[in-house]
Amino acid sequence: MIKRAVILSTGDEITSGKVVDTNANFLSDKLAENGIDLVAVLTVGDVPERLEWAWRTAIGLGDVVISTGGIGPTVDDLTTETIARIAGVKLVRDHATVEHMKRLFATINRVMPENNLKQADFPEGAEIIPNPLGTAPGFRMPMSVDGHRSELIVMPGVPREMKPMMENWVVPWLQKNRGTDRVFAVRIFQTFGMSESALDEAVIGLIKPGEAKVGLRASFPQISLRLTVEGAPGEAQRKLDEVSDRVREKISQFVFAEGDASMEDVVGQLLIEKKIRLAVAESCTGGLIGHRLTNVPGSSRYLLADLVTYSNNAKADLLAVSQSTLEKFGAVSEECVREMAAGVRRRIGADVGIATSGIAGPDGGTPDKPVGTVCIALDSDTVTASRRYQMRGTRDWVKLLASQVALDWLRRFALGLDIGDSTLFRR
Amino acid sequence: MIKRAVILSTGDEITSGKVVDTNANFLSDKLAENGIDLVAVLTVGDVPERLEWAWRTAIGLGDVVISTGGIGPTVDDLTTETIARIAGVKLVRDHATVEHMKRLFATINRVMPENNLKQADFPEGAEIIPNPLGTAPGFRMPMSVDGHRSELIVMPGVPREMKPMMENWVVPWLQKNRGTDRVFAVRIFQTFGMSESALDEAVIGLIKPGEAKVGLRASFPQISLRLTVEGAPGEAQRKLDEVSDRVREKISQFVFAEGDASMEDVVGQLLIEKKIRLAVAESCTGGLIGHRLTNVPGSSRYLLADLVTYSNNAKADLLAVSQSTLEKFGAVSEECVREMAAGVRRRIGADVGIATSGIAGPDGGTPDKPVGTVCIALDSDTVTASRRYQMRGTRDWVKLLASQVALDWLRRFALGLDIGDSTLFRR
Repeated sequence: MIKRAVILSTGDEITSGKVVDTNANFLSDKLAENGIDLVAVLTVGDVPERLEWAWRTAIGLGDVVISTGGIGPTVDDLTTETIARIAGVKLVRDHATVEHMKRLFATINRVMPENNLKQADFPEGAEIIPNPLGTAPGFRMPMSVDGHRSELIVMPGVPREMKPMMENWVVPWLQKNRGTDRVFAVRIFQTFGMSESALDEAVIGLIKPGEAKVGLRASFPQISLRLTVEGAPGEAQRKLDEVSDRVREKISQFVFAEGDASMEDVVGQLLIEKKIRLAVAESCTGGLIGHRLTNVPGSSRYLLADLVTYSNNAKADLLAVSQSTLEKFGAVSEECVREMAAGVRRRIGADVGIATSGIAGPDGGTPDKPVGTVCIALDSDTVTASRRYQMRGTRDWVKLLASQVALDWLRRFALGLDIGDSTLFRR
Repeated sequence: MIKRAVILSTGDEITSGKVVDTNANFLSDKLAENGIDLVAVLTVGDVPERLEWAWRTAIGLGDVVISTGGIGPTVDDLTTETIARIAGVKLVRDHATVEHMKRLFATINRVMPENNLKQADFPEGAEIIPNPLGTAPGFRMPMSVDGHRSELIVMPGVPREMKPMMENWVVPWLQKNRGTDRVFAVRIFQTFGMSESALDEAVIGLIKPGEAKVGLRASFPQISLRLTVEGAPGEAQRKLDEVSDRVREKISQFVFAEGDASMEDVVGQLLIEKKIRLAVAESCTGGLIGHRLTNVPGSSRYLLADLVTYSNNAKADLLAVSQSTLEKFGAVSEECVREMAAGVRRRIGADVGIATSGIAGPDGGTPDKPVGTVCIALDSDTVTASRRYQMRGTRDWVKLLASQVALDWLRRFALGLDIGDSTLFRR
């Protein structure tokens, strides 16, 4: 019965600081989602006695040890033989794996090098974990050390190979072996426009004790809210749906997506659905809004142009911002961004125009317009809106937050919601 | 004498998958730079018996244990009391720290909450490590467990507080206590335009065995080359300078910076020095060039405007790309980007214009112009250049690589180097 886990990350590239170990983070998350307690993460380099120490220690601490790395084709890859040595079993070559690897090499017109054969050797008694995206499969086997029995899960260190193996094979296996038929039903809401504490306060009263677990995770500029319900299969999902309805009702307009979608994904989808063609005029965000929008495949269907008018001349010349506005109110003003949004829309012939202008810092602030002052405007046939915000943080944070507010305005516009209702950043 | 280190990362936010542990990576790097062997990284949550296990284990493995996290003001912060318990010493309040914290809270017009006082308690015999950027200092103390003596270094988990503490206090302390007067002299070259293997090949013949250690680290789209020389103080630096001269001579035009500067920092600095005013026209990069340029404070001094002309209409209307070019060669062609670069330069009245157009994917490719086809052009009074590249990778990689090539062209233009001499990505 699997209750407690240890993660084992191996590889000189980690202990030498060459690579950030994001695998451990991914695995921790999956374990938490499935109610398995993570006792420790152990990381060691490719040194035989350290690997042996780490495996013995991990087996002593956990019911399951999940390992990444050390099963490649090089002499530094010692995981498989370390395990066989501790278990006192021999290595057995798996011929189906050899064939699989040979086929993979053939598809890229190469002959498999001899040393790859080693990746088809497994400790006797191991069960193979398929690796659809790479040459080397992983494996699972039980082992006892000093009377403590543990299940070993061995996967490659390459994240794009390891992640599907964890999701498609290991997680279902863990769920089957948790020794309970209770499951976790999970839903994630992506929110923007409420602070962590405001979100916490809004949601806390909606959920009875023991009904669901609420987790907030800030990844600037957005905050995700995760609801987890534990229960019998079916029942957990039903309860989750019920709680989700209450949460949705309360904070609906701050939820821009459920699941993993980004703000720019959502905006793009809405612009396609509503057949809205967009023109952007950026000053302080410097191209970031365009960059984010064009990260979404197919964005040419709605984004016509984005004019980054960094100088006043460019604002006047390309967007027809009037000299008197620039002189009287300055480039960072609601008056100016309104003219920018209207100007870019007219110039490009779009259905909606959005514009930003501000002082991203660290220099350029004045008492009237300190660093972090950002003005945003939206212009369309039906709606015109502008607002001045006071944002805090470094240059890149101000740029990112301003781009997020602008995208959120587009989302709200497309949905017919009140624009800029989010008063969080309002001056 | 400090030869072997263990890193200890603590906190439920790490073991629950909430946060990626980038501290361990930073610390690993610093240890490697200073020739200290990292035996293991241990990560545990805020659970008393696990913390105690981790500390005892770490002390058994290393001459020094470097810990981050667990010294905040909350009840979950257990590091200090765990250490005091294992050492069998009492906690002593440091009044200078209390005063320091009170002053910090006063500067933000707040009274220090009572529970922060705990951050001024240290195990008896500890030496305080100043924390210039936060409330809680760290500390150092020796401890023996089962006859093995180790030095403990305790720092906060917040990266922006921990990093300067490591660099300004811990690293010098480690150097003093490495038990050798030999030092490491280090120089980093930031390169772009050569592949990892080409770089390796170019440099390997320049360096005699034992003269310097060469480390390559790819962080797409650039590769850093790190030279490390170990030796007596003065001598190591002299030898490093000598080797660096040879490396510089061989790969000079691919080195865009020495140290930590980014490509956009370097381009910005050059445009200021040479008094060059820039206009950009982007298609497939979608605003990313403008975004990167404007990440540099003061970029309004050289960036006049960036026109993201995503539609053909916008290319014709704003940049005066001719209809016949669009019809005959298409938007993704050297002919088109040349007109874009010339058009944006003329339209904005800049000294130099740079333009991109391509197919970032995943859709939109044709047999003639597969996904990853990117055309780049530069236009000025003295130089006109254009080139077609075939890039590989996902949409975001193609965008990033294309933006990097464009910025590198600007760097080469400002320096009077051959533009696009880097043939790595050339079709």
